[in-house]
Amino acid sequence: MRLPRALTPRTVVSAHCDLPCGIYDPAQARIEAESVKAISEKYQANQDPEFRTRALIIKEQRAELVKHHLWVLWTDYFKPAHFEKYPQLHQLFNEATKLAGAAGAKGSTDPDSGVKLLEKIDEIAKIFWETKQA
Amino acid sequence: MRLPRALTPRTVVSAHCDLPCGIYDPAQARIEAESVKAISEKYQANQDPEFRTRALIIKEQRAELVKHHLWVLWTDYFKPAHFEKYPQLHQLFNEATKLAGAAGAKGSTDPDSGVKLLEKIDEIAKIFWETKQA
Amino acid sequence: MRLPRALTPRTVVSAHCDLPCGIYDPAQARIEAESVKAISEKYQANQDPEFRTRALIIKEQRAELVKHHLWVLWTDYFKPAHFEKYPQLHQLFNEATKLAGAAGAKGSTDPDSGVKLLEKIDEIAKIFWETKQA
Amino acid sequence: MRLPRALTPRTVVSAHCDLPCGIYDPAQARIEAESVKAISEKYQANQDPEFRTRALIIKEQRAELVKHHLWVLWTDYFKPAHFEKYPQLHQLFNEATKLAGAAGAKGSTDPDSGVKLLEKIDEIAKIFWETKQA
Amino acid sequence: MRLPRALTPRTVVSAHCDLPCGIYDPAQARIEAESVKAISEKYQANQDPEFRTRALIIKEQRAELVKHHLWVLWTDYFKPAHFEKYPQLHQLFNEATKLAGAAGAKGSTDPDSGVKLLEKIDEIAKIFWETKQA
Amino acid sequence: MRLPRALTPRTVVSAHCDLPCGIYDPAQARIEAESVKAISEKYQANQDPEFRTRALIIKEQRAELVKHHLWVLWTDYFKPAHFEKYPQLHQLFNEATKLAGAAGAKGSTDPDSGVKLLEKIDEIAKIFWETKQA
Repeated sequence: MRLPRALTPRTVVSAHCDLPCGIYDPAQARIEAESVKAISEKYQANQDPEFRTRALIIKEQRAELVKHHLWVLWTDYFKPAHFEKYPQLHQLFNEATKLAGAAGAKGSTDPDSGVKLLEKIDEIAKIFWETKQA
Repeated sequence: MRLPRALTPRTVVSAHCDLPCGIYDPAQARIEAESVKAISEKYQANQDPEFRTRALIIKEQRAELVKHHLWVLWTDYFKPAHFEKYPQLHQLFNEATKLAGAAGAKGSTDPDSGVKLLEKIDEIAKIFWETKQA
Repeated sequence: MRLPRALTPRTVVSAHCDLPCGIYDPAQARIEAESVKAISEKYQANQDPEFRTRALIIKEQRAELVKHHLWVLWTDYFKPAHFEKYPQLHQLFNEATKLAGAAGAKGSTDPDSGVKLLEKIDEIAKIFWETKQA
Repeated sequence: MRLPRALTPRTVVSAHCDLPCGIYDPAQARIEAESVKAISEKYQANQDPEFRTRALIIKEQRAELVKHHLWVLWTDYFKPAHFEKYPQLHQLFNEATKLAGAAGAKGSTDPDSGVKLLEKIDEIAKIFWETKQA
Repeated sequence: MRLPRALTPRTVVSAHCDLPCGIYDPAQARIEAESVKAISEKYQANQDPEFRTRALIIKEQRAELVKHHLWVLWTDYFKPAHFEKYPQLHQLFNEATKLAGAAGAKGSTDPDSGVKLLEKIDEIAKIFWETKQA
Repeated sequence: MRLPRALTPRTVVSAHCDLPCGIYDPAQARIEAESVKAISEKYQANQDPEFRTRALIIKEQRAELVKHHLWVLWTDYFKPAHFEKYPQLHQLFNEATKLAGAAGAKGSTDPDSGVKLLEKIDEIAKIFWETKQA
């Protein structure tokens, strides 16, 4: 599923510091997840052992960033009222961060693990933008 | 509430990498939270503006580490079966990480915000050690 | 000037690792710059010295991230052919990163320094998306 | 040798920032060293090249953290009076950090290098807790 | 060849923070680039797969530091007047940072990629010291 | 005083990774210490509270880097034979890193604390270069 970003409010760009600055955007996690997927694709298309080792080193870092950006959204952006309205939200975030970890995109070089991660992030992003419009 | 660590299995020391190495320990978050509390106490006891600025800089870092260590436990250690058995676990982690953030220990220099954070970590630690003994 | 993102190809989301994964997106720098601007606004609206110190700590970090994301685009995404076609590009990046530094958003709490930074990033983003469509 | 933690004062949990907050705990180094050992064990038990590369990436990070936590204790916690009372302390720390480096746990995947590191950390921890009780 | 540093004036060395402190020195980038070259040499001389993986992990980090130190010089030290006087400076920095990246020292284990990087850094250093003497 | 670097041999500079690459150079610690001293000087010359807070934030980071670079030399470069030949070396490093910490350059804005730190680093550097020439 593609995130219908064209439909979301554009004025609010978006992210994440814990001042908080009030700026959040799931795009931060999504960009890193796109990177994770692309790395796995390049890994599969390249047999050179040095390239493959570099790919694993970098995929590890980008996947860690996915986790971090998602954790920030979960803890810093979403409030008790959101969790009441979207009772599945805790589990969604837990599954998404697990999909970025050892059992998912970190532990696999199958581009499909990147796809699954992106889909889960898109589910979160959909809810995120609903709450911004509320 | 003090964590009755003397009662927990000692052989398993404990932490947290996403290989995963299988080693986890809530002590990592707790140590940083103790630091956060101690920093606030020293802040209150010292009027020197340079000291106070340094205290705020460092408290920000230690509180961020509390959040990180808790997020790792939540995503990497705890499994679906645990969340089923302890349905309050998602909310506990969400509250604990919020208590380490802007609305809690980061945004306040009241040592009591450190105490509240430690208590919440202890609730999590209690469940953690129960699952290790299971 | 607002970035007409609705007009840019949506399938390519985008960023930045040095494998390279081939995914780049000026949004990464822009999000951090939005944060920098928002922090300055909150700084101006709040006289509390603890809050203000925290704002300066965090602004420093987000501005550093702006610089980093821009440097990555400049070195890793843009190729000699781009610099030939857009001879102003080197200077644009140099000015943009300076606007994020001591003489700009790091050294000032005037939200206008954030605005100027955002405008410069948008100039870069415009060129970036033109090269992606080429 | 196992650290007889049950015998150490529990009220002082403990770590390490350079405010200083006054909270220190050798457990921080020990937890990372346990991780290093566990990673080597998993490495030996798994022939998958991707898994092995990930293990090496992560072991490098955890071993670096061991070094860091030990350095902090050596510089920030221990005072001239301690070094007078325990003249072997400098060498102990130097050996322990070397055991975490290229000539030890970083450069080897033999779990025994992790064991040796843990034993050295325990020697340091024994002295640490003696000084806390003094 | 041994560096007879004992013969060089010790009092003023130099670097780079974005206060700015006014202290800059291309030696920071050069030292990391020397490391990058040495790692490639050791890589070529050692067939052990574990050693080689560690070499790739560490080379990635040192090459990233080369890029960072160069970016800092380019943005923070050099001023518009310098770029006017040395019109080739933008391109020199762009090429140097590219030589430290995927198309250069990161993506290759040929020590010659380290040599090329060092030569480019030396071109920059020459200009740097000319501007300091001006 | 201007550093006549143009007169020093350019070919070999030197540093420090834990491969190990075999490249070490006390200049890394010294450059950061120069920065620490310069920051304190600028702090004393500027009453603006925002500037002063930024100075404290950045001094904290540079002083931490001094500690790190010194720790690396102590653990990774110096070998048992060196410590036998220079029995004061352990204490020198311990004092130098303490001078970079809370009781020294981190905890003070007196430029003299930077001077003391530089002097101690120079004592270490003198021994370092002696061992390189041996």
